[in-house]
Amino acid sequence: MPKKRVYRSKKKLGQIPGSVVYTGERSKEKLHLEAFDYTKENCTELDLKSVTESFDFKHTNSTTWINVNGLNYVDEIEQLGNHYELHPLVLEDIVNIAQRPKIDEYDNYLFVVLKMLYYDKNQNIVSEQVSFILGKNYVLSFQEAEGDVFDAVRDRIRQAKGRVRHMQADYLLYTLIDAIVDHYFSVIEILGDKIEDFETAIFSGEVDDDISQKIQNLKREILRVRRAIFPLREVINRIEKNESPLIQKKTITYYRDIYDHLIQVSENIDIYREMIWSLMDMYMTTISNKMNEVMKVLTIMASIFIPLTFIAGIYGMNFEYIPELQYKYSYFILWGAMIVMFLGMLYYFRKKKWL
Amino acid sequence: MPKKRVYRSKKKLGQIPGSVVYTGERSKEKLHLEAFDYTKENCTELDLKSVTESFDFKHTNSTTWINVNGLNYVDEIEQLGNHYELHPLVLEDIVNIAQRPKIDEYDNYLFVVLKMLYYDKNQNIVSEQVSFILGKNYVLSFQEAEGDVFDAVRDRIRQAKGRVRHMQADYLLYTLIDAIVDHYFSVIEILGDKIEDFETAIFSGEVDDDISQKIQNLKREILRVRRAIFPLREVINRIEKNESPLIQKKTITYYRDIYDHLIQVSENIDIYREMIWSLMDMYMTTISNKMNEVMKVLTIMASIFIPLTFIAGIYGMNFEYIPELQYKYSYFILWGAMIVMFLGMLYYFRKKKWL
Amino acid sequence: MPKKRVYRSKKKLGQIPGSVVYTGERSKEKLHLEAFDYTKENCTELDLKSVTESFDFKHTNSTTWINVNGLNYVDEIEQLGNHYELHPLVLEDIVNIAQRPKIDEYDNYLFVVLKMLYYDKNQNIVSEQVSFILGKNYVLSFQEAEGDVFDAVRDRIRQAKGRVRHMQADYLLYTLIDAIVDHYFSVIEILGDKIEDFETAIFSGEVDDDISQKIQNLKREILRVRRAIFPLREVINRIEKNESPLIQKKTITYYRDIYDHLIQVSENIDIYREMIWSLMDMYMTTISNKMNEVMKVLTIMASIFIPLTFIAGIYGMNFEYIPELQYKYSYFILWGAMIVMFLGMLYYFRKKKWL
Amino acid sequence: MPKKRVYRSKKKLGQIPGSVVYTGERSKEKLHLEAFDYTKENCTELDLKSVTESFDFKHTNSTTWINVNGLNYVDEIEQLGNHYELHPLVLEDIVNIAQRPKIDEYDNYLFVVLKMLYYDKNQNIVSEQVSFILGKNYVLSFQEAEGDVFDAVRDRIRQAKGRVRHMQADYLLYTLIDAIVDHYFSVIEILGDKIEDFETAIFSGEVDDDISQKIQNLKREILRVRRAIFPLREVINRIEKNESPLIQKKTITYYRDIYDHLIQVSENIDIYREMIWSLMDMYMTTISNKMNEVMKVLTIMASIFIPLTFIAGIYGMNFEYIPELQYKYSYFILWGAMIVMFLGMLYYFRKKKWL
Amino acid sequence: MPKKRVYRSKKKLGQIPGSVVYTGERSKEKLHLEAFDYTKENCTELDLKSVTESFDFKHTNSTTWINVNGLNYVDEIEQLGNHYELHPLVLEDIVNIAQRPKIDEYDNYLFVVLKMLYYDKNQNIVSEQVSFILGKNYVLSFQEAEGDVFDAVRDRIRQAKGRVRHMQADYLLYTLIDAIVDHYFSVIEILGDKIEDFETAIFSGEVDDDISQKIQNLKREILRVRRAIFPLREVINRIEKNESPLIQKKTITYYRDIYDHLIQVSENIDIYREMIWSLMDMYMTTISNKMNEVMKVLTIMASIFIPLTFIAGIYGMNFEYIPELQYKYSYFILWGAMIVMFLGMLYYFRKKKWL
Repeated sequence: MPKKRVYRSKKKLGQIPGSVVYTGERSKEKLHLEAFDYTKENCTELDLKSVTESFDFKHTNSTTWINVNGLNYVDEIEQLGNHYELHPLVLEDIVNIAQRPKIDEYDNYLFVVLKMLYYDKNQNIVSEQVSFILGKNYVLSFQEAEGDVFDAVRDRIRQAKGRVRHMQADYLLYTLIDAIVDHYFSVIEILGDKIEDFETAIFSGEVDDDISQKIQNLKREILRVRRAIFPLREVINRIEKNESPLIQKKTITYYRDIYDHLIQVSENIDIYREMIWSLMDMYMTTISNKMNEVMKVLTIMASIFIPLTFIAGIYGMNFEYIPELQYKYSYFILWGAMIVMFLGMLYYFRKKKWL
Repeated sequence: MPKKRVYRSKKKLGQIPGSVVYTGERSKEKLHLEAFDYTKENCTELDLKSVTESFDFKHTNSTTWINVNGLNYVDEIEQLGNHYELHPLVLEDIVNIAQRPKIDEYDNYLFVVLKMLYYDKNQNIVSEQVSFILGKNYVLSFQEAEGDVFDAVRDRIRQAKGRVRHMQADYLLYTLIDAIVDHYFSVIEILGDKIEDFETAIFSGEVDDDISQKIQNLKREILRVRRAIFPLREVINRIEKNESPLIQKKTITYYRDIYDHLIQVSENIDIYREMIWSLMDMYMTTISNKMNEVMKVLTIMASIFIPLTFIAGIYGMNFEYIPELQYKYSYFILWGAMIVMFLGMLYYFRKKKWL
Repeated sequence: MPKKRVYRSKKKLGQIPGSVVYTGERSKEKLHLEAFDYTKENCTELDLKSVTESFDFKHTNSTTWINVNGLNYVDEIEQLGNHYELHPLVLEDIVNIAQRPKIDEYDNYLFVVLKMLYYDKNQNIVSEQVSFILGKNYVLSFQEAEGDVFDAVRDRIRQAKGRVRHMQADYLLYTLIDAIVDHYFSVIEILGDKIEDFETAIFSGEVDDDISQKIQNLKREILRVRRAIFPLREVINRIEKNESPLIQKKTITYYRDIYDHLIQVSENIDIYREMIWSLMDMYMTTISNKMNEVMKVLTIMASIFIPLTFIAGIYGMNFEYIPELQYKYSYFILWGAMIVMFLGMLYYFRKKKWL
Repeated sequence: MPKKRVYRSKKKLGQIPGSVVYTGERSKEKLHLEAFDYTKENCTELDLKSVTESFDFKHTNSTTWINVNGLNYVDEIEQLGNHYELHPLVLEDIVNIAQRPKIDEYDNYLFVVLKMLYYDKNQNIVSEQVSFILGKNYVLSFQEAEGDVFDAVRDRIRQAKGRVRHMQADYLLYTLIDAIVDHYFSVIEILGDKIEDFETAIFSGEVDDDISQKIQNLKREILRVRRAIFPLREVINRIEKNESPLIQKKTITYYRDIYDHLIQVSENIDIYREMIWSLMDMYMTTISNKMNEVMKVLTIMASIFIPLTFIAGIYGMNFEYIPELQYKYSYFILWGAMIVMFLGMLYYFRKKKWL
Repeated sequence: MPKKRVYRSKKKLGQIPGSVVYTGERSKEKLHLEAFDYTKENCTELDLKSVTESFDFKHTNSTTWINVNGLNYVDEIEQLGNHYELHPLVLEDIVNIAQRPKIDEYDNYLFVVLKMLYYDKNQNIVSEQVSFILGKNYVLSFQEAEGDVFDAVRDRIRQAKGRVRHMQADYLLYTLIDAIVDHYFSVIEILGDKIEDFETAIFSGEVDDDISQKIQNLKREILRVRRAIFPLREVINRIEKNESPLIQKKTITYYRDIYDHLIQVSENIDIYREMIWSLMDMYMTTISNKMNEVMKVLTIMASIFIPLTFIAGIYGMNFEYIPELQYKYSYFILWGAMIVMFLGMLYYFRKKKWL
């Protein structure tokens, strides 16, 4: 998730509305098309060479999942979109990766956009846009690049595990979204760990100098995750409430289940958000406590030795007539007095609990 | 309530939707099944050896409460669930202890999940998930482990105290939920006590070094209790508003009563939440006040003795011609002058109210 | 308003729902029953010896107000309740003083609970629960103890002042609630005065050491008053909007008037709440300003005398060859130099506006 | 706007509902009644001697505006009210100046209360309550005292400028409210200027000691203006949405226009509110920055001269055998060393950017 | 965007409602009228000399866009407005540049006001009001001055790029609004950059003295941008939801697209708002950290040298009998002791991590 960029939503300034332009940065990826075509009994898995190979699946009776990796191949995507009769604005949204999670209903299909979140090797959150088209008997999915969270789903289709092979395309879409939402849990788990690491660091006093910068960055990260996840609740809610003929009644229960998960994730995010705001407060009290300690050391040292130095100064004066100077035991008496003062001071500071 | 864990709601990453997998940590508990079967006149209490023994109660005319302790016995729970015709997603939710309080309505039963809260011996909040199935003439309840807040309910059933033996299963469910909600009051009472202990500690200045950590933990605790309790309001509200045939009209008044209690608890929680946020502010002013006091001591000591030391330094100089040095009473006059300065300083600081 | 107590709403843990148990602390009050029975022409005022004496009023044509003081007399209240056919849950709520202001509608009567607020002699807010039953031609009221805000209402009934004798029971209920709401204004007036006293104290710098504790207590007080008053708005709103046959159309205008008053009170409370939150901020800046002043004194004293002391120290050295020491006017020249430095420092600090 | 007063909304404690009692403080004003009676062609302007003179206007066909100054003349107002058949509660509200802006609809008239805001000569906000009665062909207006914002309206009526003489009473009411709302803009403009003056003062560091008190007062002022203006939005919205026969369709557009203005004012107020909250934060950082500067001066002075003084002290010791003392150039070497240390220190502090 | 001004919404105090008065500051601009008249096949572009030249376009079948630059030419605008039968209030709103974004529906046209935002050369946000009239086959647009964000639209019309020449006036309006909304993205991108620059500056410690002033200004800027953009969401939503015959069904999809963009912009603004609020907190901790460092230097210097100076002072006393003075190696022993103390201190401070 590059920090600086506010993706302009759809086009360069002055660009014609309706242009299909990829706005992301992964323009060197290869195009990769895969297709799963299955019924209760059979399952075919294909690596497609070109988009045209996918055209036949539109009217089969079997359920088909066509997964497109590589949003920079706008021509192929337009070709595919035209075959499946997608609206030009849908095509634009697919390749413009600054979409907010949303659902748009068209006559023959549903268009769902959401964000796939995961941590990369450097512990940075990656937010990849995934778009789905749910047709009568097919699901099209579009991703920026290869590598996703759907491997378990692929396995289940291949090996006919679970219900997926017994259900239609609407259940397939559920399975895919569910896989994405499941990953949200691991993302926020890591966020939670980070917050607790900060807490521990602050409480133990072992903070780096850039702790407040790190906290600010974490705050930003949480705000971004929030933005990726929160609108999805509304999307799923609309699927659940809506009476699209593309979603069967018996599948709705499953979408309700995703909705429950999203509420759980959202609540966790909001708790984290509240926790992180109080981190700064805590850091502030830590700093103040430290300063307090510094001041105490200074005050104790100064309060003890400044008066003693004054007394020594008195008897360093060169007046001709200072009676004490002649007296033989003066020096020792003075030492005694000084030690008494010293101990008195110590006692005073101890009573004040500064020592 | 383990701190680190964000329970993934339903399955391991990639797990098939519909798998019944226990997600908690109490996997060493024994399975314990108990049943109460009663009418106005009679009451039978049974310790069941196996789930099959509970099957007959489904079609009796008497009211039955079957309580299952031990969510790790997923096979038995599935067996029971299948007999009582529960939806697979319900079974999953029962054994996945990361549920949010919720109610799901199915054709023949209501499914209610909520959190039982209590403090354990170490004054840590324990949050245990309890699920209820309300059927036409039975209530099934599922708990993670033995030990609950239902003993008083059991007594009332045995001894026919109160209305419970005169009413049906919907009232039994009310009684059980009511017992749980009653415990919320004792939980928040302890929370309130903790806040006041912190206040007292901060005001008296007798704070441990980790006070802000403790406050942060308490904040977290309140947020978690909040999360366990707040969604329950919506659940009870839906029972009250809904016209499920499983809840009789005359019982609704009782559910409204629970709703009132939940609002009371919620309001208290929100007040505590506001109080705890201002605790940090207060702690901050306390620290600043202390620093102020430290600085005053330093300033008073330094302001009094530094000028005096300077004067003593003057007459410690070795110039050959310093007229005062020869004068016989110089030393005593100087002492007099110094004492006057000293008293002047004291007066000045007293006037400034620093002393 | 005892601070520590979170009243458990209805019963001891494990208590049977439906038990009529007084949860307050004033268990030594005497039972006091008074009755007003009036028509446009006549008015009878009675001190009842026992609840049975009140039974006849149920079916008279005149309007009756029966006021019960002493919620610890649960038996008498149950007896009365049974005669007037009150639901068991209503009886429980009457004697359980932890109710939130609410209205419950039953077939033959309305049940209204609210909080009477006033300051006692020690300037502590007292919150006493008052319950009303509005029947066709009677109002029952229940208070914890004698002493209330209804004396003016009693006078008006006795002396036929205002409209009360010309109207029915619904107007009587309005009059009683109005008397309570009127007292809210004096309560928040005192709250407002307290806030301004704090402000004045903080600005004048004459703060006690426990000022932040007092602010915290005031915050708590406001939150509690808020909790007592805010739900009442909803109660009155429901009376106004509802079409209960017990409230006549022409009386509704008067309830709307109460509603307006409650909105006014609520707005004041919210303003006070906002003001009190900024009190802590202000206190903080006051502390910091003071510390600043302390530091300035220290810095001025130290900056002036430390360099001078250093110079005096120089000429206190015992080197055999220090040319200046022999020169006759050295001492006076040095004094001159020191005074110049001193004045220079003063000028510098004055320019910095520290003096 | 006196600060201390929370106006009790309608009556002294225990006062009979329905009493017409003036609650303001301007009881020495003279009663002043003026009337405008106009049609498209003619316009009569009258200074009425007594309220009875206004009675004839009730049934004329021309449009009449009767303006009453002096709310302390409750008898005259009651007389007028009775003639125009106003509800007793309306009369109470007119003379009770603690009303919240509101609209009440009665059978034959609309009752609108709002606040006229302006700054007096001492730059204090004055909030004067103005009540309007809109009847079929007349508008009654009630103000506390003479002096208002309606002069331009009077001119327009007299000179038949604009549409006012061509329209009916509903447009007249619009014109009057519009004049009041227009003044809100000048009020918030002054508020905005005040905030910017504070900002400038804080940033330039030229703050008075009571700046935080002034900020607190401004905060309070904004909260009060907010309270006077915000409810009016709802009032106008109800006029716009409602289908009162007293407001003609073609006039509604004009009320919508007022509504737009109120939204603009409200948004400005909320922005100011947010700005003022951050003023305290800014002030706090300013204080801290100053303290930082003070500390730096102290630290620099002390760090430079304390070590030097120590060295001078060393050679002021009276040991019999200190080899350096005898050496002829010791003194000058020492001076050299001290100057080197001094410059080193300067260099160090400059590197730290403290100088 | 001049800072000081709260534009009074419509008229000078006392001005007649309905007056067309320009409230902006650009009164020296020249009037510039341009017109595009196009069908699918042809396109005419005209520079109009006077408003009368635009009158014929009202009833043509082709689509016409008339763009008026120069709101100070109120006479010409009134003339134009009268020809196109605009309501007087609409004309007022067009030339009063303090409008909030809004949509008003009239019988034959829609009136839309919004704000065009861009940064000028000095990196100040400029907010220019643009009004649109959408009629059956024409769009009128009104701007304060020449120079806008529509050049790309002009090109597309001229060169028949995109859909614009194939669609009607409702699509033209969409295109124009879309161009404005697209510019919002670049504005908030710059805002985001500014926030990050502040963060970097604060973290690196290289802050100017007026950083908090700059932050405050940025806060204000964000609040203003927010105010310009947020109401527009409601405007577009109403276009989308409404069933105005002026907006064709197929165009609605495009407006929904704008709506999505506005939500994206709004979310970014709210994130920036949250980020900027925490900037002050961060700055505060930075200041405190610096003060801490200053204090440490002072404390270390004072704690090391004050005790040493005291010891030197002791042996500078002039008592006749101080045994150590006579001893030959005293001086060297003392030096040794002092160095040990010095090192001990260093060790102590290092252990405390102050060094």
